[in-house]
Amino acid sequence: MAITVVGSVAFDSIETPAGRRERCLGGAATYFSLAASFFTDVRVIAVVGEDFGLEQEAVFRARGIDTRGIERAAGKSFFWEGSYLDNINEARTHNTELNVFAAFEPKIPDAYRDSDFLFLANIDPVLQRQVREAMPQVRLVAGDTMNYWIKDHRPALLEVLKGLNILLINDTETKMLAGNSNLVQAARAVLALGPKALVVKHGEYGATLFHGSSPKGESAGSAFRAPAMPLEDVVDPTGAGDSFAGGFFGYLASSAAADELTSAAFRRAMFYGSVMGSFACERFGTERLQQLSRKEIDDRFILFRELTHLD
Amino acid sequence: MAITVVGSVAFDSIETPAGRRERCLGGAATYFSLAASFFTDVRVIAVVGEDFGLEQEAVFRARGIDTRGIERAAGKSFFWEGSYLDNINEARTHNTELNVFAAFEPKIPDAYRDSDFLFLANIDPVLQRQVREAMPQVRLVAGDTMNYWIKDHRPALLEVLKGLNILLINDTETKMLAGNSNLVQAARAVLALGPKALVVKHGEYGATLFHGSSPKGESAGSAFRAPAMPLEDVVDPTGAGDSFAGGFFGYLASSAAADELTSAAFRRAMFYGSVMGSFACERFGTERLQQLSRKEIDDRFILFRELTHLD
Repeated sequence: MAITVVGSVAFDSIETPAGRRERCLGGAATYFSLAASFFTDVRVIAVVGEDFGLEQEAVFRARGIDTRGIERAAGKSFFWEGSYLDNINEARTHNTELNVFAAFEPKIPDAYRDSDFLFLANIDPVLQRQVREAMPQVRLVAGDTMNYWIKDHRPALLEVLKGLNILLINDTETKMLAGNSNLVQAARAVLALGPKALVVKHGEYGATLFHGSSPKGESAGSAFRAPAMPLEDVVDPTGAGDSFAGGFFGYLASSAAADELTSAAFRRAMFYGSVMGSFACERFGTERLQQLSRKEIDDRFILFRELTHLD
Repeated sequence: MAITVVGSVAFDSIETPAGRRERCLGGAATYFSLAASFFTDVRVIAVVGEDFGLEQEAVFRARGIDTRGIERAAGKSFFWEGSYLDNINEARTHNTELNVFAAFEPKIPDAYRDSDFLFLANIDPVLQRQVREAMPQVRLVAGDTMNYWIKDHRPALLEVLKGLNILLINDTETKMLAGNSNLVQAARAVLALGPKALVVKHGEYGATLFHGSSPKGESAGSAFRAPAMPLEDVVDPTGAGDSFAGGFFGYLASSAAADELTSAAFRRAMFYGSVMGSFACERFGTERLQQLSRKEIDDRFILFRELTHLD
């Protein structure tokens, strides 16, 4: 099943203890599509500026990603500059330039309209909702958001949550969205806002899947926790969460899982999410996702099983 | 196989968002022995003051724990006062009174000398070493420590580490001990100090077992990660780490595992550690461990498997 993703395609300048990169290709939709492209067909909706050239386009093309929905606008692409010098797990933002993204009006190519899966990456919830409503035929919708939208654009975000099958956010965002510092209680409160499933990303500690159907007091029975890889060298965690989402949703959309979205399929999707997130951290920007084989993904999946399974 | 544990038996005054308890029974050796007692015979070495009476003694006796090594001294027992009001995962210490613990000289009852397993709970490494050397016959030695000993008593601690089979500490302690902020690199450095295995406790995110034999660059293949329980109500996390250690080491010492300490036994021990740590959090102090059945433990073990296993 094909996935359409709407989100940012950007340039990032990144500094970590491992070094610095200037203006490398980034953005949530970029990481998501590269990760998901190992599992299924991916189509991107985004806007870029005149600085987005053949070199960047080629990164998508090399993975067979449909870029007809990437609009070229006059001006510069979205730009983010951040560092992870004090804490490798938490970005410090030095600069954000919205540029062409400030006036982004998502346009959906006709060729995308038969997509069965839709991913709403972290953008203005007003835009997320527009895209969702413009693609009523999709079978499964997942999305991401961030503290800024949770705090200052809550009504619009709540409208989006009503139409989501799966929300993928981190611990802090979950607790902020629920106004509750206990993760399990917060997860339950978020599920009551609409999503049928919630994936809480714990960074280096993995991620937990909560299902909306979980009866009160039996949280563990209906939850599933995937580990993260204990990594010897975290070069750059930028995009790890988006790569998790790409691996997770890409696997769900893949022919192996899409016909019947069982609990077992969700569990394996969580593992593939962690696998793709772990690869993303191993080099700067999208470098590792660009140089990755399906065999490496499957081998790491097996490692994750050995890391967590009793037998 | 019987376990001898040396450590603190204390009184704790605890405040959490769920309420406050004054001078409840606490101490690392207390939590450890209660947790381990569900798996094997446990013998305690500690010192208490005149405030330790029949009521406290009965808590140990009810679980069949050998208290002949708990020395009564003139004065008051070790006392700790702390709260978890801002962050349920991190204690804020308001008061520590060593009292009789300040002059603690561990005395090993003859009846303890055939113990095959020894646990050195978090006390002065000089004392840990004394007990270790006084019990040369033990087959397996595990231990704990804390930031204070790592920072200010490093030479004595390093001597203890040389003689340990298993060290159980948390993320912060691991990184501090190694002087390295990457967990995998830090774990490798700690293993180079002597322990054959290292269990890093991640609080609400579970724990990771690292084996000393792990070849460089293949960290995940020889690591094992147990989840923590996503708990709806964390009443009081005091003693969760010691209860983890008790479940972990208790299972290893149990007849099911002790004859052959396979990798599979270590994995199950990690799960039992997480299981006991999760129970400890459910009520104040040792209340939950006192009111616990082996069936509840086994049921939660199954929940942990469902929480983490693909099939």
